[in-house]
Amino acid sequence: MDKTFFSSNEGKPITCKAAICRKAGEALVIEDIHVDPPQAYEVRIKILCTSLCHTDLTFWKLSFGPISRFPRILGHEAVGVVESIGENVDGFKQGDVVLPVFHPYCEECKDCKSSKTNWCDRYAEDFISNTRRYGMASRFKDSSGEVIHHFLFVSSFSEYTVVDIAHLVKISPEIPVDKAALLSCGVSTGIGAAWKVANVEEGSTIAIFGLGAVGLAVAEGARLRGAAKIIGIDTNSDKFELGKKFGFTDFINPTLCGEKKISEVIKEMTEGGVDYSFECVGLASLLNEAFISTRTGTGKTVMLGMEKHAAPISLGSFDLLRGRVICGSLFGGLKSKLDIPILVDHYLKKELNLDSFITHELNFKEINKAFALLEEGKSLRCILWMDK
Amino acid sequence: MDKTFFSSNEGKPITCKAAICRKAGEALVIEDIHVDPPQAYEVRIKILCTSLCHTDLTFWKLSFGPISRFPRILGHEAVGVVESIGENVDGFKQGDVVLPVFHPYCEECKDCKSSKTNWCDRYAEDFISNTRRYGMASRFKDSSGEVIHHFLFVSSFSEYTVVDIAHLVKISPEIPVDKAALLSCGVSTGIGAAWKVANVEEGSTIAIFGLGAVGLAVAEGARLRGAAKIIGIDTNSDKFELGKKFGFTDFINPTLCGEKKISEVIKEMTEGGVDYSFECVGLASLLNEAFISTRTGTGKTVMLGMEKHAAPISLGSFDLLRGRVICGSLFGGLKSKLDIPILVDHYLKKELNLDSFITHELNFKEINKAFALLEEGKSLRCILWMDK
Repeated sequence: MDKTFFSSNEGKPITCKAAICRKAGEALVIEDIHVDPPQAYEVRIKILCTSLCHTDLTFWKLSFGPISRFPRILGHEAVGVVESIGENVDGFKQGDVVLPVFHPYCEECKDCKSSKTNWCDRYAEDFISNTRRYGMASRFKDSSGEVIHHFLFVSSFSEYTVVDIAHLVKISPEIPVDKAALLSCGVSTGIGAAWKVANVEEGSTIAIFGLGAVGLAVAEGARLRGAAKIIGIDTNSDKFELGKKFGFTDFINPTLCGEKKISEVIKEMTEGGVDYSFECVGLASLLNEAFISTRTGTGKTVMLGMEKHAAPISLGSFDLLRGRVICGSLFGGLKSKLDIPILVDHYLKKELNLDSFITHELNFKEINKAFALLEEGKSLRCILWMDK
Repeated sequence: MDKTFFSSNEGKPITCKAAICRKAGEALVIEDIHVDPPQAYEVRIKILCTSLCHTDLTFWKLSFGPISRFPRILGHEAVGVVESIGENVDGFKQGDVVLPVFHPYCEECKDCKSSKTNWCDRYAEDFISNTRRYGMASRFKDSSGEVIHHFLFVSSFSEYTVVDIAHLVKISPEIPVDKAALLSCGVSTGIGAAWKVANVEEGSTIAIFGLGAVGLAVAEGARLRGAAKIIGIDTNSDKFELGKKFGFTDFINPTLCGEKKISEVIKEMTEGGVDYSFECVGLASLLNEAFISTRTGTGKTVMLGMEKHAAPISLGSFDLLRGRVICGSLFGGLKSKLDIPILVDHYLKKELNLDSFITHELNFKEINKAFALLEEGKSLRCILWMDK
């Protein structure tokens, strides 16, 4: 690491390149920005690589409501290296390889101290501030001095960003940074949902609705737990070949089911229903199908996708009464600082398949191409390299 | 026990009194009936006392659909003594004190052998047959020879009934039979929901919607687990005084909340929501209130009541996504043969308050009065004695 470089900017703003989203749905523009030094409990990091996730697309397009805000620096899956630290920062030092995570873990509140949840009672309710402890105060300005908004406390589409320690995890420098970046959001969410939320056991049966990176990661988690049958459901039949790398044993394309509901097909394939179902698309109608695809008496359904139209979920009361469970979780129930190092370790032991998630690699300057690839369903994860 | 009496009828029909429901909603009629001897896996029992539960009222009134059937012998909360046994009956002998239970436990299927559920994969799906292993075959005939239908595999509104061993639990003769009868359905359902379904911990906060016997039993279960705050919600404010005996610390009458939703009141009382909520009425709208009354990140809602209008449940997708859980269960997640003896033991150790559930006692002949008391909300449980 270039220690001289790091120390020379400590306490001063840094001028660097960032991809700014100035208007909903418009191409991002690479501009020079100023990144303020980190305040207390904050760390300024140099992004090494970043990827993009459907949530970036959603917020890029969102043109109304309190969570739509421009100009903004999107991006929340990344790996960086610590450039400088603010006051009261324990556990991070210049040169550390770090992973920013959108979901907070303050380590001190009732929920962070509880093993029951990865909710952070202190911080998780607020996901619209720019900085975790300073409200709408931003660390970004454009060349004309205009404030640029943060995104999910990460904003990784920038050469430098400032992240609160509640959103930062130190990781082993042994893991290739592009693989590590995947653990920043989508892949961890999927694996966590299988391991921590559903607690999938050996020999169990699984249905996964929606085979983007999150859905495939659920399968990877279930595969590592020894699930006997992993059924993928997606309107794109090409996903099955890809999905086999992550343990899928069966596949359903709902557009080819004729009159039959997906849940009926699943029940036929599994003698009455799967043990666990996962909804990774974000459609209330699909969540209901996922719910009734599970076994009476024990079936558990995990909602991972944010409902695209904020529609309510409708469930049959008798289906619920007869022993089914449905739950939701953010970030797969993982506590970032505790669980991400475990996932890194599984990768380093060659147990966890992360490599197959990376379908494309581009330079950061080609970020709009990466958006198009994801939007068109052509990429799972496209790694954007800042320096190569 | 009168051993001579028992043996004299073995293998022969018994003529005795039963309360027959001949038409939906009409007064029951005490008539002479013939009770056939038990077949293989069945036991004929002499009912000592029975109580009635809202499910009896529901089926008494139900005038349409496949589960509405007359003439019928209702009743499913009771204690009896074994009069005779059929072939292949292990674990029961003449003179044993037994509790019939509507929910099956075959002990042999995948689910009965699993600690994850009290569903019985082999039998629980069928709740409309007359006899568990013989379909619509009935053990009851009236004096003219007409077949009388069973109810939930129990039919306790009769001096004698025939019950499958999958629906029968042997209990200690030390417990007074009227107290034991309560464990046959409603009270066990409530305690089980707190203990086995929610797994309430010491110091936790609870909201219980609907303070009939089931809701009060949830409180009793939560009280025994050391819950810090138990909030009762009922439109009848008199329930609070009664509820204090079962551990209620707070009470909300929704009709006195003005513009505020129940969930808003609960959130104010508990710094953001309860740890566990229980819906014991059977209204989808109330279930949603129960759901959003729980804490973000950890809140768990248990549905105990059968939805009165078979209406679907509607839940906010974002409320679910942020870490809430909702589940349903029948019979409080209890496996009858394993868990009821534990509850009996808690009673005998003077830990479990069963006495306060019994608000009325009548002779079996006055059964229509007991129906009126329950329907008018005047009784919690009315014990009907067969012989006194």
